[in-house]
Amino acid sequence: MDAPHEGQFLIESPFFDRDGSPAMPAYLSAVGRRYYLEKMVSSMPEVVQKRIDVLKNLQLDQLHLEAEFYGELAKLQQKYMAKYQPLYEQRRDIIAGLVDTTQETRKWNSPPKTGGMADDEMGDFLRSSLERCTNLPKDVKGIPEFWLNVFKNTPMLCDMLHPEDLPVMGKLTDIAVKCSELDDSFVLEFHFSSNTYFSNAVLTKEYFQRVTVQPDDPFQFDGPEVYRCQGCTIDWLPNMDLTMRTETKRQRHKQTGMVRCFTQQTPLESFFNFFSPPELEANGTKSEDNSNEHIMRVLEADYDVGHFLRTRIIPRAVLYYTGEVVDDEDDELEDDDDDFSSSDESSEGEGGRKHSVNECPTH
Amino acid sequence: MDAPHEGQFLIESPFFDRDGSPAMPAYLSAVGRRYYLEKMVSSMPEVVQKRIDVLKNLQLDQLHLEAEFYGELAKLQQKYMAKYQPLYEQRRDIIAGLVDTTQETRKWNSPPKTGGMADDEMGDFLRSSLERCTNLPKDVKGIPEFWLNVFKNTPMLCDMLHPEDLPVMGKLTDIAVKCSELDDSFVLEFHFSSNTYFSNAVLTKEYFQRVTVQPDDPFQFDGPEVYRCQGCTIDWLPNMDLTMRTETKRQRHKQTGMVRCFTQQTPLESFFNFFSPPELEANGTKSEDNSNEHIMRVLEADYDVGHFLRTRIIPRAVLYYTGEVVDDEDDELEDDDDDFSSSDESSEGEGGRKHSVNECPTH
Repeated sequence: MDAPHEGQFLIESPFFDRDGSPAMPAYLSAVGRRYYLEKMVSSMPEVVQKRIDVLKNLQLDQLHLEAEFYGELAKLQQKYMAKYQPLYEQRRDIIAGLVDTTQETRKWNSPPKTGGMADDEMGDFLRSSLERCTNLPKDVKGIPEFWLNVFKNTPMLCDMLHPEDLPVMGKLTDIAVKCSELDDSFVLEFHFSSNTYFSNAVLTKEYFQRVTVQPDDPFQFDGPEVYRCQGCTIDWLPNMDLTMRTETKRQRHKQTGMVRCFTQQTPLESFFNFFSPPELEANGTKSEDNSNEHIMRVLEADYDVGHFLRTRIIPRAVLYYTGEVVDDEDDELEDDDDDFSSSDESSEGEGGRKHSVNECPTH
Repeated sequence: MDAPHEGQFLIESPFFDRDGSPAMPAYLSAVGRRYYLEKMVSSMPEVVQKRIDVLKNLQLDQLHLEAEFYGELAKLQQKYMAKYQPLYEQRRDIIAGLVDTTQETRKWNSPPKTGGMADDEMGDFLRSSLERCTNLPKDVKGIPEFWLNVFKNTPMLCDMLHPEDLPVMGKLTDIAVKCSELDDSFVLEFHFSSNTYFSNAVLTKEYFQRVTVQPDDPFQFDGPEVYRCQGCTIDWLPNMDLTMRTETKRQRHKQTGMVRCFTQQTPLESFFNFFSPPELEANGTKSEDNSNEHIMRVLEADYDVGHFLRTRIIPRAVLYYTGEVVDDEDDELEDDDDDFSSSDESSEGEGGRKHSVNECPTH
């Protein structure tokens, strides 16, 4: 379903000058608006400016309370984390084929089937994937390639995959999250069955979060903030490193005719680069340095992936496997796709608007 | 700062067939993917399908626990709501000029000024607004038009305003939220000082939320969901209704020459239509009926506004007044605006990624 957008109440805003320049600060860029409003405040009588300062003192008190709220929220989340854990472990064991409880009956009613798919939407690759499922042995163990399929079904995760990653990603047996008792940091664990690529049984990615009102810029406080992440060392088996191509070159000396060998390493794009995130330089974003700007973009995307795995994929993996979950970015896809949007909307019930698993008003 | 987008790790996904059709379900529309994955699951050996059913039973248990989590979260939010309330009341009284505590000193450090604004960004209207501030009397009471300015500074709210609304919106003295003790519903209260438009001192908008796993489609559960909203009756003073133009027409009968008068009413666009939201027809969204489709879009936008007022505007009003808050939609504006983006990024510190006040992982 469409995410409503600004202007949904209006065809167009009447608040533009004849020359098209915005007649409301709302329609300036965020920075232009900030600049304009600083001017506005400083043009006001001193008594008003003082009152605004008092409101900002009150705001500061509110933000410190809000930080307390997030502290208690983290405890509440850990309490429920402990309740979810046994369910996640059962899921893991069923996927791995360690336990089989196929006698269970469905506890839910299937909703009505969704609309069909235009034939041209399904290319040869997808048709052949379907055949591969049909040809699985009748007595196959567990749920083959469950987590790989979760990746294949989810744009944000699929974007990280490369063709060379697929065989070993088929060995991914579980994704788990461990939350720190001390702070808001968390570790994502990627469990792999034994494979011919690396000897690690678990690859880890740690996200360091803080929930602090920064003294140097307190009004930017907006709840938990990831400020750093850390990967792990992958013990690649010889010549199996998916993140680096190593070539041995022979070079003959023109005069002496002596031959020397040297190895040349070329970095490769791979999901497994996720475990060696780039480091920001000390001067951080204050510098105009482009490489740092680029690193920041990569880190932001990385933090979003970590957050997404923790808050969406781990809790709802099977719904991503079956396609029964619909995320906002899917909704946006719907926009381009009016044939589907209406049938999809029916799944939303009576016009309900979800402010979803990732959203919780603090008041 | 840019919201990272899919593909940030990759220039382009390698997972498309030569003919351009997606080679991964991720790149189908949400409905196409759902359809394809239903096929995929049903082409699997029966034992695998049974295991997937078991995972969905576990998912159902997890979602019911998650609903419990949201119940406890609502209590936690109410506990903090009570802590914030006195701060909001002080804010209200300072804005109204009922109390004056201008002797207070700033409790915060001002962050470095943000970048400037291209002259052509500031049209005549904004320039004249600045002059109006400069010309306020030195001993002006409270903070004039505080809430109107919050609206003017915020795209989602400014989009709801019309020129005719501005005079009475200048009389908006407070926006408050009252949360229900019984369920997740909440009421937004818009307080107005006496004005020549309507006799109400408070206009209200109630949002009815539920946090229930729907038996008919349990896997769509995604936390609190607004399912209905209700406005209030505005007691317009004679001929002041901003939502309806009433004209009296005189018509002379061709034969008898008798004159009869009748009144003609024309609905007008106005912010105050916010207090009479449209009603969905009984058959809801299941129908393909276009008017209902349109009503749903309007309601979704309405629910978003209610959520935004509750979770962003009320807690941080002064930061919207001063422009010191930056919302995601502003970040998107930044994209179009590279001159500003880097200076704006500096406010984010060391590449921190906020999963903000509206986001709280449930695990």
